[in-house]
Amino acid sequence: MSGTLYGLGVGPGDPELLTLKAYRVLTSAPVVAYPAPDSGESFARSIVAGFLKPEQREIPIIVPMRVERFPARAVYDKAAAEIGAALSAGDDVAVLCEGDPFFYGSFMYLFERLAGAHRTEIVPGVSSMVAAAAAAGRPLAARNDVLTVLPAPLDDAALRARIETADALAIIKIGRHFNRIRHLLQTLNLEAASLYLERVTLASERVLPLRAVAEDAAPYFSMILVYKGAEDWIADLTGVRR
Amino acid sequence: MSGTLYGLGVGPGDPELLTLKAYRVLTSAPVVAYPAPDSGESFARSIVAGFLKPEQREIPIIVPMRVERFPARAVYDKAAAEIGAALSAGDDVAVLCEGDPFFYGSFMYLFERLAGAHRTEIVPGVSSMVAAAAAAGRPLAARNDVLTVLPAPLDDAALRARIETADALAIIKIGRHFNRIRHLLQTLNLEAASLYLERVTLASERVLPLRAVAEDAAPYFSMILVYKGAEDWIADLTGVRR
Ligand SMILES: C[S@@+](CC[C@H](N)C(=O)[O-])C[C@H]1O[C@@H](n2cnc3c(N)ncnc32)[C@H](O)[C@@H]1O
Ligand SMILES: C[S@@+](CC[C@H](N)C(=O)[O-])C[C@H]1O[C@@H](n2cnc3c(N)ncnc32)[C@H](O)[C@@H]1O
Repeated sequence: MSGTLYGLGVGPGDPELLTLKAYRVLTSAPVVAYPAPDSGESFARSIVAGFLKPEQREIPIIVPMRVERFPARAVYDKAAAEIGAALSAGDDVAVLCEGDPFFYGSFMYLFERLAGAHRTEIVPGVSSMVAAAAAAGRPLAARNDVLTVLPAPLDDAALRARIETADALAIIKIGRHFNRIRHLLQTLNLEAASLYLERVTLASERVLPLRAVAEDAAPYFSMILVYKGAEDWIADLTGVRR
Repeated sequence: MSGTLYGLGVGPGDPELLTLKAYRVLTSAPVVAYPAPDSGESFARSIVAGFLKPEQREIPIIVPMRVERFPARAVYDKAAAEIGAALSAGDDVAVLCEGDPFFYGSFMYLFERLAGAHRTEIVPGVSSMVAAAAAAGRPLAARNDVLTVLPAPLDDAALRARIETADALAIIKIGRHFNRIRHLLQTLNLEAASLYLERVTLASERVLPLRAVAEDAAPYFSMILVYKGAEDWIADLTGVRR
């Protein structure tokens, strides 16, 4: 009997934000796979490091650190082959997915290669977007708000059109686009309504008004929430004046 | 010392989708509050019923079942007073929030009344939107997709404009708007790209092409995911022909 492939949402960073189900699947899977940069540690693995056991086999999926982390075809082909072999041998494989697996997750590249041939189950997780709103201490969307999620790599024209029509707004994948996004929000008169959030739910979490960000770059694990009309609340957050 | 108010995300329905943190806070809070309809059981409470202990004090917040569940001011004033008294007496209060507390959650009505005066912590949860994508077995958003969340009560013109520009789309709060939304998707030539999902992660879960829905109404706990370009995949789901 073939094993089951699990796309396992492990949440935004705090190990306590794993679901009971993710914890159960994780601690009972003989094989655990996860994306990892070519140097340094895997973020997804670091979240669950305290739950892993020495007897579990680990399959790191080394994705060369490119700017947008776009799929490296050969990398996923090789990882899928290795994971597929474990599944065919009857082992369940838990693939660790930061946040939720199907919310902009790279798990899709394994899913599209393996789900046709193997029993697959997605264990949804706490996405970084809702964790960011919790860290902000302000509802992400309420009543009949239209909520828009924008990946920062989109070009300015596309971003601008969506920013203008959205009620509530999360801009993800900021990274090297930080300055461009900030400038765009300035031209739309929305910088003062924007909150910058970095590594939410981790000890190194930072939450501050976009205006108060001194750097002109941001790490990969950062996002901006735009709270239209909440300029005063944001200014009060750390005494930053409008 | 005043107690802490917790906005506790309990996930979309499956009790195993509580986070480890929500489980810990829930099982150690002396007071548990939750929204409840004027007749019938509370959905949020039903999710965690197996975890509650007889010695925990329960505060049901009876929200008269109106169509959109818009805030009943007096109800929340009274609930906030009762919860505030428990907090002031030094007890922690866990308010159960279906899905995530700050993703269109009614918790905001208590939050805006209580967070100024009491220590408050939001425990983010698995939102129904990501759970729906997991149930669908198809990524919600990928790469640089723009993801839009639309509350069905919006009028047709507002909906139409957003549906046209979105790449990925979740329509929530369907309920009595079901027929109108279906008709709108038909006129936009998107019915065949739409998936209907009801009570995801519960035993009574239903996932089917919108075209295959025979009823002309939907329960409150349902949503539509629009997967533009995925007409063939949706048609194959249950053999519904285009
Ligand atoms: C490829 S997406 C994956 C999202 C993930 N699947 C989820 O559900 O959160 C990566 C982006 O999510 C956001 N992100 C993920 N974790 C984060 C965290 N702990 N703090 C802030 N942003 C985070 C950042 O914008 C990052 O660029
Ligand atoms: C007021 S919103 C609250 C959303 C919640 N806070 C969350 O994070 O999922 C209620 C809407 O969420 C959607 N919903 C919630 N639970 C659901 C479930 N189990 N299955 C399908 N849709 C659900 C429905 O569209 C419903 O009308």
